Amino acid sequence: MAKVKVHVFLKPGVLDVQGKAVEGALQGLGWTGVSNARVGKLIEFDLDGVADPQAEAKKMCEQLLANTVIEGYRIEAA
Amino acid sequence: MAKVKVHVFLKPGVLDVQGKAVEGALQGLGWTGVSNARVGKLIEFDLDGVADPQAEAKKMCEQLLANTVIEGYRIEAA
Repeated sequence: MAKVKVHVFLKPGVLDVQGKAVEGALQGLGWTGVSNARVGKLIEFDLDGVADPQAEAKKMCEQLLANTVIEGYRIEAA
Repeated sequence: MAKVKVHVFLKPGVLDVQGKAVEGALQGLGWTGVSNARVGKLIEFDLDGVADPQAEAKKMCEQLLANTVIEGYRIEAA
């Protein structure tokens, strides 16, 4: 059984409104040194019965987990 | 300047509906070996002008980034 972690994030250049909101809120709380905040998703699951978890996770990202028009992804399989 | 990554996830035992949806969808697409899917948030930002980024990030989590009633968090500052 493989433990798979998929990190899905907006591509650079795509406006990250959630990140902007976090940045503004942290600055409002006094952390004025915060910049370039980005918010992504981290999807973790166990994967059984496949020969190559990394390759299968890539297929999952392309088909379901990431919107590849605006999002990139990074896969860790262990 | 420190690069801070904060991983916010639902505590074990809290029903993760987003994770269940991902798991169901992946199984529907034929990946029947998928189990224990959990979906969390990954917040990344740059932090300037603080002595101890790790400690400041912990304060941010307690005050804003995580709902500590149902969510846990993990901080990486580099």
